[in-house]
Amino acid sequence: MTLERTVAAIRPADEPAMAAARELQARLTKPAGSLGALEDLSVRLAGLAGTSPPPLPDPAAVAVFAGDHGVHAQRVSPWPQEVTAQMVANFLAGGAVVNAFARQAGARVVVVDVGVATPVPTGGPGLIEANVRRGTRDITVEAALTRDECRAAVEAGIRIAGELVEAGAKCLLTGDMGIANTTPAAALIAAFTGTDPAGVTGRGTGIDDAMYAHKVGVVAAALARHTPDPADPLGVLASVGGLEHAALAGFVLGAAAHRVPVIIDGVIAVSGALAAAAFAPDAVAAMVAGHRSAEPGATVALAHLGLGPLLDLGMRLGEGSGAVLALPVVAAAVRVLHEVATFDAAGVSEK
Amino acid sequence: MTLERTVAAIRPADEPAMAAARELQARLTKPAGSLGALEDLSVRLAGLAGTSPPPLPDPAAVAVFAGDHGVHAQRVSPWPQEVTAQMVANFLAGGAVVNAFARQAGARVVVVDVGVATPVPTGGPGLIEANVRRGTRDITVEAALTRDECRAAVEAGIRIAGELVEAGAKCLLTGDMGIANTTPAAALIAAFTGTDPAGVTGRGTGIDDAMYAHKVGVVAAALARHTPDPADPLGVLASVGGLEHAALAGFVLGAAAHRVPVIIDGVIAVSGALAAAAFAPDAVAAMVAGHRSAEPGATVALAHLGLGPLLDLGMRLGEGSGAVLALPVVAAAVRVLHEVATFDAAGVSEK
Repeated sequence: MTLERTVAAIRPADEPAMAAARELQARLTKPAGSLGALEDLSVRLAGLAGTSPPPLPDPAAVAVFAGDHGVHAQRVSPWPQEVTAQMVANFLAGGAVVNAFARQAGARVVVVDVGVATPVPTGGPGLIEANVRRGTRDITVEAALTRDECRAAVEAGIRIAGELVEAGAKCLLTGDMGIANTTPAAALIAAFTGTDPAGVTGRGTGIDDAMYAHKVGVVAAALARHTPDPADPLGVLASVGGLEHAALAGFVLGAAAHRVPVIIDGVIAVSGALAAAAFAPDAVAAMVAGHRSAEPGATVALAHLGLGPLLDLGMRLGEGSGAVLALPVVAAAVRVLHEVATFDAAGVSEK
Repeated sequence: MTLERTVAAIRPADEPAMAAARELQARLTKPAGSLGALEDLSVRLAGLAGTSPPPLPDPAAVAVFAGDHGVHAQRVSPWPQEVTAQMVANFLAGGAVVNAFARQAGARVVVVDVGVATPVPTGGPGLIEANVRRGTRDITVEAALTRDECRAAVEAGIRIAGELVEAGAKCLLTGDMGIANTTPAAALIAAFTGTDPAGVTGRGTGIDDAMYAHKVGVVAAALARHTPDPADPLGVLASVGGLEHAALAGFVLGAAAHRVPVIIDGVIAVSGALAAAAFAPDAVAAMVAGHRSAEPGATVALAHLGLGPLLDLGMRLGEGSGAVLALPVVAAAVRVLHEVATFDAAGVSEK
């Protein structure tokens, strides 16, 4: 499935299904509007599915896209680059937070090597090998990726979304791993939203004031070098992005093309989601913002997409943790439309 | 179990267990602090349990305390009073939102008739009969309850918490049903926090501007008539409270005495939680704020208790819906301490 064909397959939300969901919500045994954001979410998911009630988001699958970053050489992270591959091994062994959360929520975890710099454990269950190149180039010096490399990463994301849906997934969730990947995420968000680097750059895994100031400068330098054009999302991703960011953009597009909801995690995922929306504005209908990451760029990006997060717990881990944590909330929102009795059926008086 | 013996059994959080949980969090394969509020929650629950990691909150049970209100005669709600009993039947049939959410979260639902005005369906599974009286008196005219009636409701809540823990529950959740019950909840919150009636009175199930202004006046009139003393929580509950509010206070105290977490739902539950904290300040250690209800009094009460809500979705349904929706988040927070690998064990480098 090419990028162009995927983009062409993405359609707007289905208005009659949304109207039917609104009408059903009004007949259920609860005061109108009393479920707040969950009611809006149920309506959006009906619009995406084109039917009311929409399917329950079960089974669900989280894809953790892992990649490395040439800009790590600029000392934007206190963690050594080898941690990316070590964490991939941790995901495959089931020992990371996203694994614990996924067991809690009943979601499947797949790990995608789309651009790790060093070899990762292969052959085990749960790993998808899709390495486009062993890490990006340094965005302060040159483009992170060629356009062809970037397209390959986007199309890997599209393909994996399709494979998971083919295997039965009714809900996709974004995950990511990549030491230094909040730096290209900040550059992407700045490029797509027109925000100053200082407004979208955060402390990532936890950096001190000196490294933070330096990181803002690195983001600014990358943007000044490449002057990415938000009307050319492939060019933006190739110049200042990352392999996992590009793959996440494709993953979101793939979900939207299949009319399956995709729960967006934190700042890395939402930077990829901005690219997806630049490719296909109607892709936003498939997006559910799992949480508000503590990274400032996440808030800027969510506002740009017009999405309200389900959770806001000061989390900034990535891995898909915030998306998986939100999955039961999404399921509950849909379950209401399937299971709650109407006033008529339950014999409950109306006001 | 009497109120006095329950209060006497409540102890402060265990500091060594909290220190052990903090130390464990620091060794897990994630940046320090990257799980935000979930890390603090895991530490609090370790302090409550007196051990690190604390038990997983499974199985969990939500008790929906139902009662009616004499103040309904003052036209503070657009809903007829018979809806309380009708919704009890809906809960027992599994057709309400709290039932759907509980199936999603894997929680047991019990319904407690602590003060419904009209007969409810009896004999079925899930109903606990603990009717103290068939609705309260009108708080604008006289005290809602005698002190003995109020004590009976509090002790019913204590007893039910104990029975659920005895039956294996590792986590309790508060639920409520009672047409007009946001009016006594507002009066309780005003009394315990010293806030003006307008600052704690909300629109409940959805009332118009005229009824809202009238409702604020009703709350103010009840407070002016009884001048409840926050140092006498039984007197506050008896004068301006409700049977489900009193039972919820007891339920929270019972959870705290058993060192089992209790997830607090919305404005009704948190008004009962204020009473519990007035009886026993250390009971706050057992409380987890499931969500921030859209009712303004909930925010005032949570701030008074020093609790941050896990969810903030504009919900205002009650029934326990916001507590049950938060249960998977609580479970995820605890699961991290049980299941996530340490840096050493996973062979992941530190920064």
